Amino acid sequence: MADLINVAILGASGYTGSELVRLLLRHPRVKIAALTADRKAGQAMADVFPQFAGVELPRLITIAEIDLDAIDLVFCALPHGTTQGVIAGLFEKKQTLKVVDLSADFRLADPADYETWYGHPHQALELQKEAAFGVTELNRDAIAGARLIANPGCHSTTSILPIVPLLREKLIDPDNIVVVSATGMSGAGRAAKEEMLFSEVSEGVHAYGVGKHRHTSELDQEFDKASGRLSRATFTPLLIPMNRGIYATVTVTLAAGATAEKLHETLTETYAGEPFIAVLPFGKVPQSRHVRGSNFVQLGVVADRGPDRAIVISTLDNLVKGASGQAVQNMNVVCGFPETEGLESRAVFP
Amino acid sequence: MADLINVAILGASGYTGSELVRLLLRHPRVKIAALTADRKAGQAMADVFPQFAGVELPRLITIAEIDLDAIDLVFCALPHGTTQGVIAGLFEKKQTLKVVDLSADFRLADPADYETWYGHPHQALELQKEAAFGVTELNRDAIAGARLIANPGCHSTTSILPIVPLLREKLIDPDNIVVVSATGMSGAGRAAKEEMLFSEVSEGVHAYGVGKHRHTSELDQEFDKASGRLSRATFTPLLIPMNRGIYATVTVTLAAGATAEKLHETLTETYAGEPFIAVLPFGKVPQSRHVRGSNFVQLGVVADRGPDRAIVISTLDNLVKGASGQAVQNMNVVCGFPETEGLESRAVFP
Amino acid sequence: MADLINVAILGASGYTGSELVRLLLRHPRVKIAALTADRKAGQAMADVFPQFAGVELPRLITIAEIDLDAIDLVFCALPHGTTQGVIAGLFEKKQTLKVVDLSADFRLADPADYETWYGHPHQALELQKEAAFGVTELNRDAIAGARLIANPGCHSTTSILPIVPLLREKLIDPDNIVVVSATGMSGAGRAAKEEMLFSEVSEGVHAYGVGKHRHTSELDQEFDKASGRLSRATFTPLLIPMNRGIYATVTVTLAAGATAEKLHETLTETYAGEPFIAVLPFGKVPQSRHVRGSNFVQLGVVADRGPDRAIVISTLDNLVKGASGQAVQNMNVVCGFPETEGLESRAVFP
Amino acid sequence: MADLINVAILGASGYTGSELVRLLLRHPRVKIAALTADRKAGQAMADVFPQFAGVELPRLITIAEIDLDAIDLVFCALPHGTTQGVIAGLFEKKQTLKVVDLSADFRLADPADYETWYGHPHQALELQKEAAFGVTELNRDAIAGARLIANPGCHSTTSILPIVPLLREKLIDPDNIVVVSATGMSGAGRAAKEEMLFSEVSEGVHAYGVGKHRHTSELDQEFDKASGRLSRATFTPLLIPMNRGIYATVTVTLAAGATAEKLHETLTETYAGEPFIAVLPFGKVPQSRHVRGSNFVQLGVVADRGPDRAIVISTLDNLVKGASGQAVQNMNVVCGFPETEGLESRAVFP
Repeated sequence: MADLINVAILGASGYTGSELVRLLLRHPRVKIAALTADRKAGQAMADVFPQFAGVELPRLITIAEIDLDAIDLVFCALPHGTTQGVIAGLFEKKQTLKVVDLSADFRLADPADYETWYGHPHQALELQKEAAFGVTELNRDAIAGARLIANPGCHSTTSILPIVPLLREKLIDPDNIVVVSATGMSGAGRAAKEEMLFSEVSEGVHAYGVGKHRHTSELDQEFDKASGRLSRATFTPLLIPMNRGIYATVTVTLAAGATAEKLHETLTETYAGEPFIAVLPFGKVPQSRHVRGSNFVQLGVVADRGPDRAIVISTLDNLVKGASGQAVQNMNVVCGFPETEGLESRAVFP
Repeated sequence: MADLINVAILGASGYTGSELVRLLLRHPRVKIAALTADRKAGQAMADVFPQFAGVELPRLITIAEIDLDAIDLVFCALPHGTTQGVIAGLFEKKQTLKVVDLSADFRLADPADYETWYGHPHQALELQKEAAFGVTELNRDAIAGARLIANPGCHSTTSILPIVPLLREKLIDPDNIVVVSATGMSGAGRAAKEEMLFSEVSEGVHAYGVGKHRHTSELDQEFDKASGRLSRATFTPLLIPMNRGIYATVTVTLAAGATAEKLHETLTETYAGEPFIAVLPFGKVPQSRHVRGSNFVQLGVVADRGPDRAIVISTLDNLVKGASGQAVQNMNVVCGFPETEGLESRAVFP
Repeated sequence: MADLINVAILGASGYTGSELVRLLLRHPRVKIAALTADRKAGQAMADVFPQFAGVELPRLITIAEIDLDAIDLVFCALPHGTTQGVIAGLFEKKQTLKVVDLSADFRLADPADYETWYGHPHQALELQKEAAFGVTELNRDAIAGARLIANPGCHSTTSILPIVPLLREKLIDPDNIVVVSATGMSGAGRAAKEEMLFSEVSEGVHAYGVGKHRHTSELDQEFDKASGRLSRATFTPLLIPMNRGIYATVTVTLAAGATAEKLHETLTETYAGEPFIAVLPFGKVPQSRHVRGSNFVQLGVVADRGPDRAIVISTLDNLVKGASGQAVQNMNVVCGFPETEGLESRAVFP
Repeated sequence: MADLINVAILGASGYTGSELVRLLLRHPRVKIAALTADRKAGQAMADVFPQFAGVELPRLITIAEIDLDAIDLVFCALPHGTTQGVIAGLFEKKQTLKVVDLSADFRLADPADYETWYGHPHQALELQKEAAFGVTELNRDAIAGARLIANPGCHSTTSILPIVPLLREKLIDPDNIVVVSATGMSGAGRAAKEEMLFSEVSEGVHAYGVGKHRHTSELDQEFDKASGRLSRATFTPLLIPMNRGIYATVTVTLAAGATAEKLHETLTETYAGEPFIAVLPFGKVPQSRHVRGSNFVQLGVVADRGPDRAIVISTLDNLVKGASGQAVQNMNVVCGFPETEGLESRAVFP
């Protein structure tokens, strides 16, 4: 095929890396040309992820070994902090490269915000300026024209999708948004840590990063922009014993004159025609398992028993629409491919 | 032992019934004298719950077959609605009986509230009046003097314990309490329903009863009483893939002059000396698995990033402190036994 | 596309039915023309399985309502026992129909065996004779020429694939095959039964159908055929707390002169070129999660510490290669489509 | 109480250590006098295991810091290999000490066996000789007289309990014992390893240590002794997604004249009067969840469909009867306490 592009995946030994491979293997316009994993360089991908036994894939190499001349687009699935230097280096070698970055390094547009939330000055300020924030449905035009796309956080995507349209239409109080966002374990990655052992996380639940989770900064940025003023969201993530899925329960206070039905109507209109976003009938509650393994999002709006509040629920798969799937969707946009290509699969349920 | 009492458990074939048996088998002052299960009458308890293989227990009988003369106290673990008639009947036969009721039938003191939330007039209004609301730590004196104790809902106990003291001290805004309360499956009981099958609830999460869950009425009753005015809580329960545990994330707005630290201090003082309630150090977040299988509660208070809000977290085991354990605790109070008797076991973790 | 075929799925409200829909939505040569679910007729598929929200699918109808003239192939995902009559009725109306049956009704070729294991005489003896046993890799030619394909049981497929080649080559003792086959819950279907509730099956394991599980009859039939004599397998299924996956641990006694390495070599040769079967390197142990959600099978052979035995391990996803995926694979064979079409997706892991 | 003994737990920061604390807190004759955890010395136990918040417990110290003069009995829950030196050191300082060792270091009586299975010569041969093998029900007299008890492996206890009596009575073929033993994750301990992460082990199953798991050596030792000759068991452990529980499916070939019923009768007689062992009615299948969190064992015997084989099933909680519970039971025996003391709790189910 004439328009087959060559992609590299940096950080292929992590979960977002393997998820990219899974999705791209079904993409008709993509050739996986390079896979990197610094500490596992030299191994076959099937040694690191046995689900790929029998698949022809390039061996894992170091980032330094990539032949960038042969690469059209890079997915960067590396840890936060080190990513900015790596990407700056890639662009130095090849200005025309496209990069979809799954780390947090280019998500915040304001250098001061970055420093506040990440504790050190940004190392690639010029790139930070040009990066497009990658919630595809809300920023499609900027993404299409960018060479660097900052794929947003999984919690962030989940809450931004339903709340930004409501803030834009001034239907809810920007000062009183309460987000409780339950997530499965795969979002925590593959690093061996005691608190991520099966015995430590099965049969139980706990909050983490309370009052200070870094995805809050992405909510702030997008909520402020949407409402045209400072917003005030309280964000509490919960870790629950499942692999995949994010489930945001957002309690909102209605603006004067607004109703829960009006919220529902606005979301329905905003996302009419969007292939990946289903707004359920008013009052219906989504379940995370119905988007598991897919790039789909399900949204629900329910009235509270009193007149002034509503509960907005949003769910997606953290590794797909919350990471690698949205990255592929952004690749489709930036490359001019049909946006759903490689992402058509419905949820694996049960 | 001179002070051994005889108890009957009505509804022994359900999960709260079997949990009562588990706990009471370790209680030095209780003899399990009767077990009822109308549809399974005639069977051995070990046929219905094989964990009791080898234990000497009375066979399951119907309620009609109980010899009330030989019974000092009844635990009633029957479905909502039918319970009020059953208990009225018991008291008719034996006025001096003590009853700890685990259903919802006697939790609401106001008949109008009951009718609003349960859809029909209460059938035992006199008993409703005399029932003591059974959050032990907050209502000990009334419980000690009652013959009928209404054991509160599992979600209710979880949120009432941390929030009522804060409302009493006027430290938080009664108009803006947002409760998201994640629960395991055992709270849904043992009835065979499609939506409770393993394949329907594993690897996923969803909200239920949004905007209308009946435990809201118990929060209203206790929050109004504590604040001395109408309060306004939004309560959203989540169902998550675990057996046991409730985990309430309560986002509160601080009253003028209050701080998150002050909230923590108040809870610490309120529950100092309480054997079953641990207030964790300020900023520490509890985990439901650390109370699993036990009658203990863990509370945490964390400051939000802004000055005006705090996140209060409360967790307990829905079948123990959320149901059968608190029922035994209430039995201890009403019978004048040491309050911790039969309930000393720490959590089963991992 | 000229060669688009129209298929009907009978029993679309069960898990194998929804899995067929999931797979066929990605199949380039299939149109889902009819979906039946007698008790849920009239409902939209998305009401029964919300993962299909937004997908254009026919409404659920009764079997009687199908317009067979417009159907080329029927997937029958109905309960055992009633299926034989339904399929006989379909062929009466349309002799040229192709049917892939996922029930057990046509798996046993011998009417006496059927009666022994299912407790009643077969009601469609002529069809029973012509049905092709649908382990695709081992019976491809018969499948290609059949109009009725009996998709085998999930446990059966898992053990037949590794053991039949070893029996054919007389490498193992047919008298001493011990199969312990662990399965997830989705194989038990969607019927509301107490023993399938989350609380009854999470955090634990138990055997079921010990000494008498009906899939044993399929093992007997295929093992006898492969060894050319009566074989003797002991088959114990375990139910474990996961949704998807079967994991067969087969302990075999080596025939004189055979070695574990030779077993591995034979499987490697037998399945060389098979797109869905990966024989792992000698001594490597498969994991069920690496085939989850996919049509792939992973096989492993490990030597026991003594010289005379080996452990052969086989794993697949019970809803895909163990049911709906193999059904689609058989459809591909019988329709002359590329065998992997619609089935290329790799496992969803993690 | 006059007969209160002081115990130390070495390795209190691991799961068997915390389980010992949980059990001993309910034991009326034991004072927990010292807790060690070399790398976490100085911390409070509640920092390492928050379920102990509010319990008065000694701070964690190093082994070197223990005041042995004040200790009557030591539970040693340290890693294999290093344990033998530690225990030799303890006895050097205090000959009259009692030690219950939960490691593998003293389980094999034959130094050659130890060297074969552990890859190095034993460092404390004299102690190895005097250690009593701690399957309580089968070795009670030796345990009562020992100062060093080697608590057996969790898989070993599970299979030894049902199989040794059958071998002693020559009811089964010692040459053809096939054990498939499914275990939960907590047996793997608390070390941070990639393969033990929630995402790596949930929703799936796999075998491990196939053909070479070290618990095989304990089966060999006890099976050989029971049968009076060399036996031949094939042992395959499976890891399944649950925390607690071991479930052994043992396929046995009947000796001439034996029947499955006879096996059942023998186990029933052997364990009549044993407080912790329930032999279910013939043909009934145990479930691991019905012993979860308890020191109980449930055994079942089922006939295979042919006359010559039977399936013997045994289940227990790996952290209780498979480790810390049996250690406490052995302490009770060696100290002359009632054997069930501290261990009476029934399973936590659901």
